[in-house]
Amino acid sequence: MKSIAQKMIKASAACLLGGACLLTTLPAIAQNKPIFRDNSQSIELRIKDLVSKLTLEEKVSLLGYRSKAVERLGIPAYNWWNEGLHGVARAGEATIFPQAIGLAATFNENLVDSVSDAISTEARAKYNLSTAMGRHLQYMGLTFWTPNINIFRDPRWGRGQETYGEDPFLTAHIGSAFVKGMQGTDPLHLKASATAKHFAAHSGPEATRDYFDAIVDEKDMRETYLYAFHALVSNGVESVMTAYNSINGVPNSVNKNLVTDILRNEWGFKGHVVTDCGALDDVFLTHKTIPTAPEAAAAAIKAGIDLDCSSVFQNDIIKAILLKLLTEKEVDVALSHLLKTQFKLGFFDDAAASPYKTYGTDSLHNTTHINLARKAAQQSMVLLKNDGNILPFKQGQYSSFMVLGPNAAALDAMIGSYHGVSSKVVNFVEGITAAVDPATRVEYDLGCDYRDTTHFGGIWGAGNADVTIAVLGLSPVLEGEAGDAFLAESGGDKKNLSLPTSEIAFMKALRAGVKKPIIAVITAGSDVDVSAIAPYADAIIFAWYPGEQGGNALADIVFGKVSPSGHLPLTFYNSVNDLPKYESYSMKGRTYRYFGGAVQYPFGFGMSYSTFGYEATTTPSKQYAAKDTINVQVKVKNTGNINADDVVQAYIKYPAIDRMPLKELKGFKRVSVAKGNEQLITIKIPVKELQKWDLTKHNWKLYPGDYKLIIGENSADEKLSFSFKLNGK
Amino acid sequence: MKSIAQKMIKASAACLLGGACLLTTLPAIAQNKPIFRDNSQSIELRIKDLVSKLTLEEKVSLLGYRSKAVERLGIPAYNWWNEGLHGVARAGEATIFPQAIGLAATFNENLVDSVSDAISTEARAKYNLSTAMGRHLQYMGLTFWTPNINIFRDPRWGRGQETYGEDPFLTAHIGSAFVKGMQGTDPLHLKASATAKHFAAHSGPEATRDYFDAIVDEKDMRETYLYAFHALVSNGVESVMTAYNSINGVPNSVNKNLVTDILRNEWGFKGHVVTDCGALDDVFLTHKTIPTAPEAAAAAIKAGIDLDCSSVFQNDIIKAILLKLLTEKEVDVALSHLLKTQFKLGFFDDAAASPYKTYGTDSLHNTTHINLARKAAQQSMVLLKNDGNILPFKQGQYSSFMVLGPNAAALDAMIGSYHGVSSKVVNFVEGITAAVDPATRVEYDLGCDYRDTTHFGGIWGAGNADVTIAVLGLSPVLEGEAGDAFLAESGGDKKNLSLPTSEIAFMKALRAGVKKPIIAVITAGSDVDVSAIAPYADAIIFAWYPGEQGGNALADIVFGKVSPSGHLPLTFYNSVNDLPKYESYSMKGRTYRYFGGAVQYPFGFGMSYSTFGYEATTTPSKQYAAKDTINVQVKVKNTGNINADDVVQAYIKYPAIDRMPLKELKGFKRVSVAKGNEQLITIKIPVKELQKWDLTKHNWKLYPGDYKLIIGENSADEKLSFSFKLNGK
Repeated sequence: MKSIAQKMIKASAACLLGGACLLTTLPAIAQNKPIFRDNSQSIELRIKDLVSKLTLEEKVSLLGYRSKAVERLGIPAYNWWNEGLHGVARAGEATIFPQAIGLAATFNENLVDSVSDAISTEARAKYNLSTAMGRHLQYMGLTFWTPNINIFRDPRWGRGQETYGEDPFLTAHIGSAFVKGMQGTDPLHLKASATAKHFAAHSGPEATRDYFDAIVDEKDMRETYLYAFHALVSNGVESVMTAYNSINGVPNSVNKNLVTDILRNEWGFKGHVVTDCGALDDVFLTHKTIPTAPEAAAAAIKAGIDLDCSSVFQNDIIKAILLKLLTEKEVDVALSHLLKTQFKLGFFDDAAASPYKTYGTDSLHNTTHINLARKAAQQSMVLLKNDGNILPFKQGQYSSFMVLGPNAAALDAMIGSYHGVSSKVVNFVEGITAAVDPATRVEYDLGCDYRDTTHFGGIWGAGNADVTIAVLGLSPVLEGEAGDAFLAESGGDKKNLSLPTSEIAFMKALRAGVKKPIIAVITAGSDVDVSAIAPYADAIIFAWYPGEQGGNALADIVFGKVSPSGHLPLTFYNSVNDLPKYESYSMKGRTYRYFGGAVQYPFGFGMSYSTFGYEATTTPSKQYAAKDTINVQVKVKNTGNINADDVVQAYIKYPAIDRMPLKELKGFKRVSVAKGNEQLITIKIPVKELQKWDLTKHNWKLYPGDYKLIIGENSADEKLSFSFKLNGK
Repeated sequence: MKSIAQKMIKASAACLLGGACLLTTLPAIAQNKPIFRDNSQSIELRIKDLVSKLTLEEKVSLLGYRSKAVERLGIPAYNWWNEGLHGVARAGEATIFPQAIGLAATFNENLVDSVSDAISTEARAKYNLSTAMGRHLQYMGLTFWTPNINIFRDPRWGRGQETYGEDPFLTAHIGSAFVKGMQGTDPLHLKASATAKHFAAHSGPEATRDYFDAIVDEKDMRETYLYAFHALVSNGVESVMTAYNSINGVPNSVNKNLVTDILRNEWGFKGHVVTDCGALDDVFLTHKTIPTAPEAAAAAIKAGIDLDCSSVFQNDIIKAILLKLLTEKEVDVALSHLLKTQFKLGFFDDAAASPYKTYGTDSLHNTTHINLARKAAQQSMVLLKNDGNILPFKQGQYSSFMVLGPNAAALDAMIGSYHGVSSKVVNFVEGITAAVDPATRVEYDLGCDYRDTTHFGGIWGAGNADVTIAVLGLSPVLEGEAGDAFLAESGGDKKNLSLPTSEIAFMKALRAGVKKPIIAVITAGSDVDVSAIAPYADAIIFAWYPGEQGGNALADIVFGKVSPSGHLPLTFYNSVNDLPKYESYSMKGRTYRYFGGAVQYPFGFGMSYSTFGYEATTTPSKQYAAKDTINVQVKVKNTGNINADDVVQAYIKYPAIDRMPLKELKGFKRVSVAKGNEQLITIKIPVKELQKWDLTKHNWKLYPGDYKLIIGENSADEKLSFSFKLNGK
């Protein structure tokens, strides 16, 4: 095989110069496998072989996200744009898991790994089934433009729901777990490729994203905006997507410092880089930092971009070469990055050789995945209030339920943005209905809509029921991406934290008409002002956009089948007036790391039906050096009356140095503890994790001083605390 | 047994005078069954026995819909108010069938009989299960306040969706089939009791219903408003409910002429009469035709009312007796009517003696009932447009679908008003998703809401799909009952036929952005102006509010698993401006029977994927007498390429006499015909059916003259026609 391969390279290199390179000119070899189809060869060799066989026009036709077929080489068309943020999206039947922000609220890396493993299993199944039918459909490919690991910097951002919240450490850990599950563990055979997006410093405003310039200094950039990207690159993410906006005057998609110097050279990223959709057009149309499309195409390739979700590369790269703005060799580098991902995905191997070849219909939306979606939704929901322990309901305690509200059965509020479809979305009405016995009454009424503040339904019926469950909140049409959240106040964004005023008025009217318990369930992908409805509800469950099993998960919690265990990956502020202006990318006064004021609920908050006692079984040292790892063992005792999960959170309090965070999550552990039992957990924090960016030396630095390790159930809780010193070395 | 029973009667009669009538005073007998508990005795004797044992206070406590317990006699509390218009409602898990108007659109009496049989089976199961737990819950009883057989006189009426349409004959037949299925066929053991409502001449306006006075002359009353009530009484309906409004100055609930003279004496009704909820309060509070509650209570009892959905009877009957407005004997008559229904339902028998005792959990929302809901929805949907036979889609023809629109996944639009809950409502998105293979793309987007005329979603995605299915229309929050349809324009009613203007604008934008086929699906319970969106869709399916299997049924039709076969039970007008003013109860110019102008779609209209040829195999006579029956046999041939159902409709054209209808449905037959095959059907019309009300003689009269029998596929179609003469005798 080797000699044939070597001959092929020679032949291909020859025809590369000529352009027209029909295989018929090499009949003896053509009847055998070309090197690029030979999976016994190294990927590097196969890439080199394939690139050598392609004309410049063909190369360029492969650089756009709608990669064209090269029929003479048997290469089918391929659409790189596929979505799988919380389930294979836009591609027909697929399991819909909780929206990303809800996955973060589980504080459960293993669970997130399982979820994305299920997603890539379904993706592989769809890919196998559709390509077997000769279909090469967008959204049925294997290159996923997910996860979104931007920092949810400001609660107004409509796309915050796509993220893992406001904290870099949590985002890095949940995001890395997601990538691991999606890409699989076999380094030579990607199960699917994940994309860390949007690189970088991208978190609104949506309305101006195509020309917005985020002013970010190096310290916030490194400590906050790049932290999770670096972590995902270290953990092998195959792809990175550049964001629409500029940073300090440079659009991300032509930012060589970011894409080449930091991402590739400093961090050692080996995968491919894609632009956000239309982001390259933005460079010359809206940012206008570069005047023409060919110049933008050349600048992007030179900055390190390999693929554009646009038509710029396919339309303008050859022009750029003719204008001497770019060389074909530079194009080859970009193409090689793309082909590498495709080779790892097995695109040039026989389908029969794929370790994923067996995935088919039975891998799709099966019982295992549906149960996993239910478990994820159970662990995502956050109990915010539970007056008099009204929850959980005891079996047979109540004989009639009213489930009402605009989001009690709204599909959008179940599935969030970047959603798929499922033939079995269990909304909240369906979930409660399924959970009670048939001799228990359940009624449903819409109650109110998102706008009308005076006309309501269902209140008489609620007064006539033993318990009312009112489901309200936001919806991905009220907060989301520019263009998608078409009913949002500002291009997808929120203007403040308020629930729709119709819902607040409705809850007030409901409380006035109902003398029995009212449970409020709030759906949203962001911080909302819960205080506006809190007086009208005995208990409040924050459900995010919980996915297709949200209704069953809610019932599981309401009826005590599981204890609530989700925790807020966000600070719940009192008001946006407590925050800097939305456009400011300085972290000063933002998130629990830098916001010192009073809040409604702190980052990490979440109630349980049970109570937990913490006891340190090892005491950490009083002094650490840079090479050390802080190591604490904690005995978590379930001191309540119900089996429950707890999320132990470890925060570091830094010495009082300018621009140090107030505190920072540096460890977390979800643990299941049976009532009366205890579990031993270990928190390990490498001291290197406590480095901060030194603006004078443009590097990481371990600042000497007095530190504190705090262990608690949320960022404002201090169940255990240990002071220690660092000498900075 | 007889001697004990006789002794008991004597003893009871004695203690009736004294009031306190403890069974312990008759220990020897008490240890045996009292007569009223002895199901070997006649119901009449059992009623007499029980009435004799009750104090006046106890009797009155049983007259309200929230009937109180008589613990000393072992009689539990009972709530007469139960709903089951298209599935057991408000009572937890139960199969949700298409809304009533959709059931009418099936033109299928056997199907409707099966549907209501399933409903009463589920009702019995819930009753058995809940009473076994000692629960006596509203909505889990056996006395159903359904069907609504009011004539859908004007398309503005929000509650028109609850009816079987605008035609008395269709209403009578579908209504009678519903009653038969609900009540069962055993005259001694009612499976459940049905209630013909609202008696009479009740069809809006909703906003003024509590004081509205319908001005109706005897001819419209008899021919249109009472026709179906008479039919249901003839077919054994157990209960009748009086309406809120007045007729010609007299509130229905105190209308002796209507309730006693016509209903009981003329028609021979033997069941019980209940008021609509609060209707008796309306008499003195809003109609104000009677000044006080005791007087209204007395007037109602004297008019023939047995039960009030109110507190008037329980609060004021004893006062009325003390005021000599009423006698206890009159109360006994009302109570006896109620007890008769309860005895027939088996309330005083051992549960073990019930022929319905085996109904339990497995009778509820089981596969048989779910399949029936799907079949009913399939047969209810009306194909209004199918340009170029775009429907049905062929298997594998398209690889990507966009399903969008405000009603694509809206629970309310699936279930209509007077709905139950189900843990498995298959909305349109879910139905289409389930129908395609997993290698076919399906996407969902809300598209627009009911209000915003400028902001839309999903259009880019639709342009990116092979086919778009846009689901829009009304919702039971936009049209419905006063107080329930809280977003309706006028107290539950519509002001015109328009779809929400946001939807029209959305469809226009969608058509502009989508070059590929668009299928519009309209949900509504009433006539809407389809022409506003027709230019923007290649095909239009009118889906009503199709119940829990609506999504699967739509998919069955779209993908050609079944041919559409629903037919409009309503005239679809061009505009409400073509109609008399809403408040006018004269039938002049209303419905296909009296409206001669151009319409959008005629009564009875509905397209098929197939075509049918009709051939008369017997020719009717040229002359008939009153005793005759017109009898035609028609061979229905499926001349198309798909197995399909056809609904053969027989209309009578009357001689040109003042106030005669233009034409009238007098027979219909749904028939399944395999492609290329034929089926023989028989239409029989008793000539007596052609009688009209003679206003001078206040009686029915067969008018002599020239008649025509027309057989066609809708009220404007004449596939076959036969002229004949009546001599009036």
